[in-house]
Amino acid sequence: MSNDHKSLREEAYEANIEIPRRNLAIYTWGNVSAFDPDKGVFAIKPSGITYDNLRPEDMPVIDLEGKIVYGKLKPSSDTETHRILYREFIYRSFGGKVAMKGITHTHSVYAAAFAQAKRAVPVFGTTHADHSAEEIPCTEFMSEEAVKNNYEFETGRLIIETFIRQNKNLITMPMVLVAGHGPFTWGKNAAESLYHAVVLEEICKMAHLSLSLKPDLEALPEYLIRKHWERKHGPNAYYGQKQ
Amino acid sequence: MSNDHKSLREEAYEANIEIPRRNLAIYTWGNVSAFDPDKGVFAIKPSGITYDNLRPEDMPVIDLEGKIVYGKLKPSSDTETHRILYREFIYRSFGGKVAMKGITHTHSVYAAAFAQAKRAVPVFGTTHADHSAEEIPCTEFMSEEAVKNNYEFETGRLIIETFIRQNKNLITMPMVLVAGHGPFTWGKNAAESLYHAVVLEEICKMAHLSLSLKPDLEALPEYLIRKHWERKHGPNAYYGQKQ
Amino acid sequence: MSNDHKSLREEAYEANIEIPRRNLAIYTWGNVSAFDPDKGVFAIKPSGITYDNLRPEDMPVIDLEGKIVYGKLKPSSDTETHRILYREFIYRSFGGKVAMKGITHTHSVYAAAFAQAKRAVPVFGTTHADHSAEEIPCTEFMSEEAVKNNYEFETGRLIIETFIRQNKNLITMPMVLVAGHGPFTWGKNAAESLYHAVVLEEICKMAHLSLSLKPDLEALPEYLIRKHWERKHGPNAYYGQKQ
Amino acid sequence: MSNDHKSLREEAYEANIEIPRRNLAIYTWGNVSAFDPDKGVFAIKPSGITYDNLRPEDMPVIDLEGKIVYGKLKPSSDTETHRILYREFIYRSFGGKVAMKGITHTHSVYAAAFAQAKRAVPVFGTTHADHSAEEIPCTEFMSEEAVKNNYEFETGRLIIETFIRQNKNLITMPMVLVAGHGPFTWGKNAAESLYHAVVLEEICKMAHLSLSLKPDLEALPEYLIRKHWERKHGPNAYYGQKQ
Repeated sequence: MSNDHKSLREEAYEANIEIPRRNLAIYTWGNVSAFDPDKGVFAIKPSGITYDNLRPEDMPVIDLEGKIVYGKLKPSSDTETHRILYREFIYRSFGGKVAMKGITHTHSVYAAAFAQAKRAVPVFGTTHADHSAEEIPCTEFMSEEAVKNNYEFETGRLIIETFIRQNKNLITMPMVLVAGHGPFTWGKNAAESLYHAVVLEEICKMAHLSLSLKPDLEALPEYLIRKHWERKHGPNAYYGQKQ
Repeated sequence: MSNDHKSLREEAYEANIEIPRRNLAIYTWGNVSAFDPDKGVFAIKPSGITYDNLRPEDMPVIDLEGKIVYGKLKPSSDTETHRILYREFIYRSFGGKVAMKGITHTHSVYAAAFAQAKRAVPVFGTTHADHSAEEIPCTEFMSEEAVKNNYEFETGRLIIETFIRQNKNLITMPMVLVAGHGPFTWGKNAAESLYHAVVLEEICKMAHLSLSLKPDLEALPEYLIRKHWERKHGPNAYYGQKQ
Repeated sequence: MSNDHKSLREEAYEANIEIPRRNLAIYTWGNVSAFDPDKGVFAIKPSGITYDNLRPEDMPVIDLEGKIVYGKLKPSSDTETHRILYREFIYRSFGGKVAMKGITHTHSVYAAAFAQAKRAVPVFGTTHADHSAEEIPCTEFMSEEAVKNNYEFETGRLIIETFIRQNKNLITMPMVLVAGHGPFTWGKNAAESLYHAVVLEEICKMAHLSLSLKPDLEALPEYLIRKHWERKHGPNAYYGQKQ
Repeated sequence: MSNDHKSLREEAYEANIEIPRRNLAIYTWGNVSAFDPDKGVFAIKPSGITYDNLRPEDMPVIDLEGKIVYGKLKPSSDTETHRILYREFIYRSFGGKVAMKGITHTHSVYAAAFAQAKRAVPVFGTTHADHSAEEIPCTEFMSEEAVKNNYEFETGRLIIETFIRQNKNLITMPMVLVAGHGPFTWGKNAAESLYHAVVLEEICKMAHLSLSLKPDLEALPEYLIRKHWERKHGPNAYYGQKQ
């Protein structure tokens, strides 16, 4: 059993230990998972273990019904949020292609501040537009009934419902703020979900500093947003070495 | 004599040297103590010594009457505050169980800012609720008479009176801001009291950034606060590996 | 071919790896170029490569018509901005002397905040005056037509037009904020352009903190600005070891 | 000649290289001097040399008339400010005792922000009161005539005049903000002057964060200020190991 899901666990491990290196969370306050769509399982941080004490062999692996298929440690208390997000993505993905194979949750301070203030983050600059052409959404508070049901599962549902209501696409908007809580981000693998968590924190820091200079600041003109998004992500993208 | 209270002194030493590592205070501006309820003594940082120059053998050990029972160095000038807090906790603990065996005092900047502004910290988010379901209290200014009496002893008394007046429980609220001064935190051992000092600073930073975005920000809905508190600290807590 | 433009590529390489060391940008979000006026070429960061993975031999070298004269990697997506700035500087330089032989572009957070708020930075203190006697300009937003034409080329043109309209001199003002985007800086070589990027970020941080204390803050008296500028850059400058 | 003023130069060297370690200034933007009252000379940072490149043997030594008595490098451009402050302190010191034997000047960002906003720093908390019982003064802008005379010499005069006008004592208030510029601090040796520069920056950071929470914040009650000052600096001080 010890080699089961080895590369998946290693991928999740590598992304988790980036959390403190990138100052996204202290102690145990963040978790990353890595998803294997062929086997329908994901590896995730064990609950309450500090990053210094993590080992790839200790990462629990969970299937989409919530059953632990590898590992002796209890998975992150946020596991149900990851599970519902993966399950929904699979059901909602187009052409059989699974777009999201990594999820990151942190308590990074600037993103948490926007989440606590229940404010979406408009596209104030090109740093934001380089990663998404849209305002980063913030959910409403979860209802009392939902909290009493299955809180972590409902957190995932709240995110998905926010995206549906706001007509957002999980591929072009890989970040969300959960009201009163903090950020969740995702990506094509665990490392990219972590990358988006770092990007979100930097965007939120710039937005916070900008709002302090100009409290009624408006979003960039749409044509500038579109240009930055397209040059990195559009059909004729020309950023980076291979597109 | 050199091995007396060895593990207690080592525990206090280890927590003290975390102060600069966690950016809670510069130079000598913070101190941690570790309490041994069986012997009725605590080890604490010596006064005016920088963390780089600390050694476990130099940590003075004090009994609950204030007598130095080990060590040649003068204990922290805040020793009387620690002493009264330990003594009160013992008298007020239930069922013979001593709940608090470590205390930390720092001048961490965000916590100090709330203390200087004499503002309690409402539960603005789940990061806070994960550690306490209540507003972090801030004391009133000490009276002039109390200052003239025994300032450090009275600082402890001020904390305890604040908890009594606000009907707070020292076990479920392990943090306090002393008005115009800074934070004191405690825990089941020296390391946990230090952990709470780090947590408090992070909560205060998030609260500060959130208030800057929304000056009239209100606390989280009570049911959300309760949920986060319960999942970590309630009778059916499910966070971490062993609860 | 492998030794072509070796020192130019090394100069650009050295300045690029300073970007993360000086906290001017994360991941790949900044680039420096070094210009050789005799050969009419510049070396620049390749697109989408992280600073850890940079090597001097991988720095592309571009001529003033935009042709890649060395290297297999695609140059920075901001290459056209650098190219138009170099070409304009040459045409506009006096007495055959090329004043600007290095350009840096970053997304440093305080400079980006002023750019996002579309605010110029007045000379609020001597730290600023030591490096420039004038307000650091911020451009207008680029027009929709210009964006559709050649965005990066037009970014350079926007900078130059801002300098012409505001009657600014590219030698005495080595910094600019592009509205909604971030800073560009330049200098007599790549290292000095990077130095100006660090200076700009520090000036913007001080300005941000000062405006928070006094929102209607005015610039320093002109005679104080002039004095600080002259003692470092005037005909009788007396700062440093050799002037 | 190479061993002349060796320990004085080493003292100044050690304090200067603490500037970047304590994040008080980048590049060459700060300087410390060490004074020898018996010989009437001081060692100071050479102008425009980065801290990495400093060596004890390169520190120029200057007498109170401004003559260079050791070293080949040009001294800091702020040398005249140090000189006038040392000379005035000697003339004004009581009982033949020279109280001030080290001076530090930096551009640390929070202190510079208060200087740029031309705001004194009231005693908002005990961190401040532990080091001074009084508001940290900020000068007025220097007059145009004084600037034209001998700017750096006049900077020292401005500090001294501010202290005289505000009836401040250079021993109990070892810090000042020069309007529009930044902080100067002093102490009983070079290391203590540097210590005060770190303390000032921390106090200014706390004050800035506190004012953001409560713009009309008032100073601590006088009896609390007095208590903290006295326990560290009064005739019956009991902080530290030896007083």
